[in-house]
Amino acid sequence: MTATTDKKLPHTIFSHRLANGMSLVGEPNNSVQSAAITLLVPCGYSADPVDRLGLASVLCDMVLRGAGSRDSRALINDLEVLGVERGESVGATQTSFSAATLADSLYEMLAIYSDIVRRPHLPGDQLDAGKSVCLQEIYSIDDEPSQRLMIELRRRTYPEPWGRSSHGSEAGIAAISSPQLTEHWSHYYRPNSAILGVAGNFEWEQLVDHVEELFGDWQVNDVPMIVEKQADMGAPHLEYDSNQCHIGIAYPSVPYRDPDYLRAWAAVGVLSGGMSSRLFTEVRERRGLCYTVSASLQTQLDRARVLCYAGTSEERAQETLDVTHAELLRLRDGVLPEELSRLKARIKSGLIMQQESTSSRSGSIAREWYHLGRVRTLVELGQLVDELTGPMINEYLESHPPRDFTFATLGPRPLELPREVS
Amino acid sequence: MTATTDKKLPHTIFSHRLANGMSLVGEPNNSVQSAAITLLVPCGYSADPVDRLGLASVLCDMVLRGAGSRDSRALINDLEVLGVERGESVGATQTSFSAATLADSLYEMLAIYSDIVRRPHLPGDQLDAGKSVCLQEIYSIDDEPSQRLMIELRRRTYPEPWGRSSHGSEAGIAAISSPQLTEHWSHYYRPNSAILGVAGNFEWEQLVDHVEELFGDWQVNDVPMIVEKQADMGAPHLEYDSNQCHIGIAYPSVPYRDPDYLRAWAAVGVLSGGMSSRLFTEVRERRGLCYTVSASLQTQLDRARVLCYAGTSEERAQETLDVTHAELLRLRDGVLPEELSRLKARIKSGLIMQQESTSSRSGSIAREWYHLGRVRTLVELGQLVDELTGPMINEYLESHPPRDFTFATLGPRPLELPREVS
Repeated sequence: MTATTDKKLPHTIFSHRLANGMSLVGEPNNSVQSAAITLLVPCGYSADPVDRLGLASVLCDMVLRGAGSRDSRALINDLEVLGVERGESVGATQTSFSAATLADSLYEMLAIYSDIVRRPHLPGDQLDAGKSVCLQEIYSIDDEPSQRLMIELRRRTYPEPWGRSSHGSEAGIAAISSPQLTEHWSHYYRPNSAILGVAGNFEWEQLVDHVEELFGDWQVNDVPMIVEKQADMGAPHLEYDSNQCHIGIAYPSVPYRDPDYLRAWAAVGVLSGGMSSRLFTEVRERRGLCYTVSASLQTQLDRARVLCYAGTSEERAQETLDVTHAELLRLRDGVLPEELSRLKARIKSGLIMQQESTSSRSGSIAREWYHLGRVRTLVELGQLVDELTGPMINEYLESHPPRDFTFATLGPRPLELPREVS
Repeated sequence: MTATTDKKLPHTIFSHRLANGMSLVGEPNNSVQSAAITLLVPCGYSADPVDRLGLASVLCDMVLRGAGSRDSRALINDLEVLGVERGESVGATQTSFSAATLADSLYEMLAIYSDIVRRPHLPGDQLDAGKSVCLQEIYSIDDEPSQRLMIELRRRTYPEPWGRSSHGSEAGIAAISSPQLTEHWSHYYRPNSAILGVAGNFEWEQLVDHVEELFGDWQVNDVPMIVEKQADMGAPHLEYDSNQCHIGIAYPSVPYRDPDYLRAWAAVGVLSGGMSSRLFTEVRERRGLCYTVSASLQTQLDRARVLCYAGTSEERAQETLDVTHAELLRLRDGVLPEELSRLKARIKSGLIMQQESTSSRSGSIAREWYHLGRVRTLVELGQLVDELTGPMINEYLESHPPRDFTFATLGPRPLELPREVS
């Protein structure tokens, strides 16, 4: 990254806190023609009642079926006439609404989203259809063994309720009634802890005015704290009639807001993600053991895990598990200088290219605010990456060696799991 | 799209034909910091010998295992040090290499890609690993029934060899030898019919100079014409032990270079793709029949098909098939004015947002050159979309009503297929 290219990056990220606790963060960029929002509403799957698993997910489907002055049809029609590209997802603590459009339509789009989260109709006569869509999603996972495996791995490695499937359960969804849906919405869709990230071509002051008008009178609501408990582990193997075997390995890491996070993240980057990363090279390119192998650092607010996945044929499964696990253990010996320089080049190039997508920027700044309560610019992040050294990462790996592994496998036969090496 | 936003779009697309027949198309855009290339090499799965299905796919893996002065490790290392984000895919008539990086590194990246396609080592001692990766990819599809179904649908609806799976077959890959790989590469990796698309921050004249130097002396080679024949249909149902059923429906459409293409594409856009599209509304939102339902127009140079997919639970499968098929037939009655205006807004917003990704632009302009032998700017495309009217689409649908359907299903039991209605 040269000084010339640096200068072109938007340097300024603004933030504003509404009196009701909602946070607004914005990164204006007048070299693009689009604008994107990511609205994080503090309603996650962790708050689903245990006998209504999937409530946040059904709610997320239902709020889009009419809101404010628009019925279901008009709502979707108007978003589409604005050319909005949208997506929703339910996470541990939040439901995320993301939407992008041309800059000229930003405020119209934002007004529709304020209706969606604040004034949804939640029409009782569409509840069966909404529940059915969510149930079909659960059923479809039956036919996607890699997804099933990773759901099981997360369930085993996180304490309850943090490792739940965002899709919920069949019984939970079937049991949801219209009054419960409305009650859950009224408790959890709330401004305190809500975060709106906006990126693209807009004026900050004007944005603040619109957001104050649209969300300023949203009423604060308090919700009970989540009480966590030990996950019910069960056996690590899921029987599945196939010639393929799916392997998952997890181990604890540090969350985003931990000062060591960047080091932890860099160590996982040496393991996976690049074309010359260790897992890709050792497991796939050199030995041809499998088509897909990867590791990623998944962070929640207070806890994080490295999650590894490999999918292979049954006869190569044991070797794939052993080689993958050995690579995780080998990380304890530290990373090499050339691995670090490749990693830095990859990260920095990725930072610049990410900048060119307003959708991904609106999500990044909203999530960074959630984890840190502030947002670093890409220039600041680039500097932090520049300052990373091999000794810094190796020191981290010495004090946080990969260990306390959780395994999950899915396939025709259980595999032999490595015993913990300390 | 207002006049203001229009002005910001890059208006100029340049093209240059090398003496050896290779085409270069470029869209400079100095408001971004990245640059991306898409190199279409005329080696597709349609040219695989019938007893070596998967040859183009193995070759695509092997050319990246060392080229020019770099061995396998150095090649991947150097791409990574440049921060390159890359991807490859094998299509009916081409292998596509796409890569993006910071603008400053464009020419270094391009030089590496000229080595990859012109001077690959194709190391014999890595052939087993390369074949194994491709085999594992085939095996992994066993566990992805929606992919298996769509492969079967394409096989049934296109004449051979146009409906083949790009992954090839287990027997075909196992049979590949090192000399065959080298021979296939020397025939099919060639400049005549190759197309290089470049988008991002670069100077056109400088790019032409570099490309002439890197590819100008690449030797022309002629290959035999593909002879097509009737596909071996077989039964439309694949047995699969699951509670889920996967449904595919295909029908013929017009290819990209046909003057009617935009109308055909708009008709499919009314059917699928938007939040208020007919399939999404009827099959998913209103009846909650399934989680995923979609249709898309897939075009090859001389033929095209509309391919529909729906995945659902077994007990809803017959109804899902019937409702989806009925929606296809209903298209014959034409589209409504409000459907067209939503569609236009969606397409135009998508065009502008696509512009903000140099990767997607480099691919779009390369493919447009392949189909048309020229490239239209986004402004021109926007005008064509503006000029679309309901009567134009309805006229097209009257002369090209959805018919001659091909079906494929995968699940525990066959479904009752609709009889052709004329």
